[in-house]
Amino acid sequence: MKNLPVFLMGCGGVGRQLLQHIVSCRSLHAKQGVHLRVVGVCDSKSLVVVADVLIAELDDSFLLEVCRVKSNGSSLQTLANSGLAFVDCSASAETIGVLNQVVDFGCCVVLANKKPLTVPMEDYDKLVSRPRRLRHESTVGAGLPVIASLNRIISSGDPVYRIIGSLSGTLGYVMSEVEYGRPFSQVVNAAKSLGYTEPDPRDDLGGMDVARKALILARLLGRRLNLDNMKIESLYPEEMGPDVMPLEDFLVNGLPLLDQKIEDRIKQASANGNVLRYVCLIDDARCEVGIQEVSKDSALGRLRGSDNVVEIYSRCYEKQPLVIQGAGAGNDTTAAGVLADILDIQDLFP
Amino acid sequence: MKNLPVFLMGCGGVGRQLLQHIVSCRSLHAKQGVHLRVVGVCDSKSLVVVADVLIAELDDSFLLEVCRVKSNGSSLQTLANSGLAFVDCSASAETIGVLNQVVDFGCCVVLANKKPLTVPMEDYDKLVSRPRRLRHESTVGAGLPVIASLNRIISSGDPVYRIIGSLSGTLGYVMSEVEYGRPFSQVVNAAKSLGYTEPDPRDDLGGMDVARKALILARLLGRRLNLDNMKIESLYPEEMGPDVMPLEDFLVNGLPLLDQKIEDRIKQASANGNVLRYVCLIDDARCEVGIQEVSKDSALGRLRGSDNVVEIYSRCYEKQPLVIQGAGAGNDTTAAGVLADILDIQDLFP
Repeated sequence: MKNLPVFLMGCGGVGRQLLQHIVSCRSLHAKQGVHLRVVGVCDSKSLVVVADVLIAELDDSFLLEVCRVKSNGSSLQTLANSGLAFVDCSASAETIGVLNQVVDFGCCVVLANKKPLTVPMEDYDKLVSRPRRLRHESTVGAGLPVIASLNRIISSGDPVYRIIGSLSGTLGYVMSEVEYGRPFSQVVNAAKSLGYTEPDPRDDLGGMDVARKALILARLLGRRLNLDNMKIESLYPEEMGPDVMPLEDFLVNGLPLLDQKIEDRIKQASANGNVLRYVCLIDDARCEVGIQEVSKDSALGRLRGSDNVVEIYSRCYEKQPLVIQGAGAGNDTTAAGVLADILDIQDLFP
Repeated sequence: MKNLPVFLMGCGGVGRQLLQHIVSCRSLHAKQGVHLRVVGVCDSKSLVVVADVLIAELDDSFLLEVCRVKSNGSSLQTLANSGLAFVDCSASAETIGVLNQVVDFGCCVVLANKKPLTVPMEDYDKLVSRPRRLRHESTVGAGLPVIASLNRIISSGDPVYRIIGSLSGTLGYVMSEVEYGRPFSQVVNAAKSLGYTEPDPRDDLGGMDVARKALILARLLGRRLNLDNMKIESLYPEEMGPDVMPLEDFLVNGLPLLDQKIEDRIKQASANGNVLRYVCLIDDARCEVGIQEVSKDSALGRLRGSDNVVEIYSRCYEKQPLVIQGAGAGNDTTAAGVLADILDIQDLFP
């Protein structure tokens, strides 16, 4: 039986779900000859770590308790042991320092957190310096096998010409709904009521989350870019930003001022036989996020609801792209992606 | 630099392309810190193997020559070395014996050949007894990441409820073309002229190739099935089989007799708002291949041309499936899938 020690950073939504998955998969993993030994859990305020990280583990009932009660624990000195999967399910920009220390110790790193991958190149290079020991499928499209597939294409020497995708369930929903003639403001408010958006929808409409995903993909292709080199289209103007306009004011008075412009763009696209999608677009010349016209007969153009979709064009997938589509958000599917990543590094363990 | 010895069985279309990929990816792999050391190549009649398999390798110019000239070589005694990736790019049903010996020796096995995975369960169990040492992405949908994605879902404990897919470019093309009212016989003849079919199109129309792929997926899900337990719909009746009716006779006189029945089924499906696809279908109750009605708004229903598409339904992808779509045939993409598999087992090597 392989013994794979796991340390989990971040036990909010995704982290908690991951612990529940780990516990409920015990017999499945036993059949596969693997045992995930959880040696520690922390969130931004607290840390729980087992006394002897070499042999002990947090037992399942304790893991489920940890999900509920945030206990305080001793300090994070136990990282000096190599052969540890260090899992970052937080959403913090501050973990890169710890992660790069962990990499130095020779540990494996599994990320659901996008931010460590969008830091300046120097820190990024350090983080990815031992690529086989880093997995981060859930940073793009949650559990959808976007990164696994892209890595397979890269390692087979098949040159990638172009990636275009809808990587925000919220913006995917909004852009397909406005197509039916509903005003932009009404669709955004409906999306908020349905729980599809962040509490302040401007966090989605600004495009930064999609930009991070685009940057992660572009860097996988070897592009040495930073977030501030990227063209990022915001669906609201600066004067309606969170620092300028209160949320309620934005929803009631700000949004309707944007309806006409979106409607005009939709009509223009429609005249060209196209539809509008908020996409990430990476090719030789560009790495950008924003509204693009796409053919209504493409996978992107046919997208409805909150699914994500990614089209990858390469020598092998030249005329017709490789398409990966499905739910790209949610704690459950994100946690499933993290767990698959952990299982995928098992060959690095004794 | 990691040193990964590779032995290639089968140097026809896919195998030859693989050798060319290996040679052209040398600098890419060097950057990744991996060197693929090809120690031997064989096809059904000949074997070329390097003298000292522990340190020597077939050099690149020789590999490219091997692609052209089939040389005779010494016997296959060198397998006793563990830490070898044994690659089967043949289409032979006879390799299972050798492969199971190779597994006994502790070697890794990479397959583009479907047939070793569709042998009776006892031999199959042996072949998959060390699952981390077996990769076979290219057996289903060529280089499309179908198996990698399914394995990720399985190892994350996400239960798979249903897989439905169009896994034959030929049958995908035929079923989408007849939808426009063209007679079945005419479409099959056109597909043959376009080079989409086997020399005798009955090899595609019989469904056996799709059935093998369905069985491979079902067995991955833990179903203990054999080919003879499966419902396999043939698109021609027994009395038009290759043993009964010459090819020319089938194309000219046999096929048109099938037009009316297909047309009737299309009309019936259309009355239900559906279209017909030749699919593999795996769920709790079924593992079968044949014509099914599918919603014209699903990924399967919207399929055109010779792309493959697979829809996977699970707890995480319950209402909307995970969809993987793209070119599912061709030497280039198949070989790319094999190469990605080889690179993917590198952590098992020193």
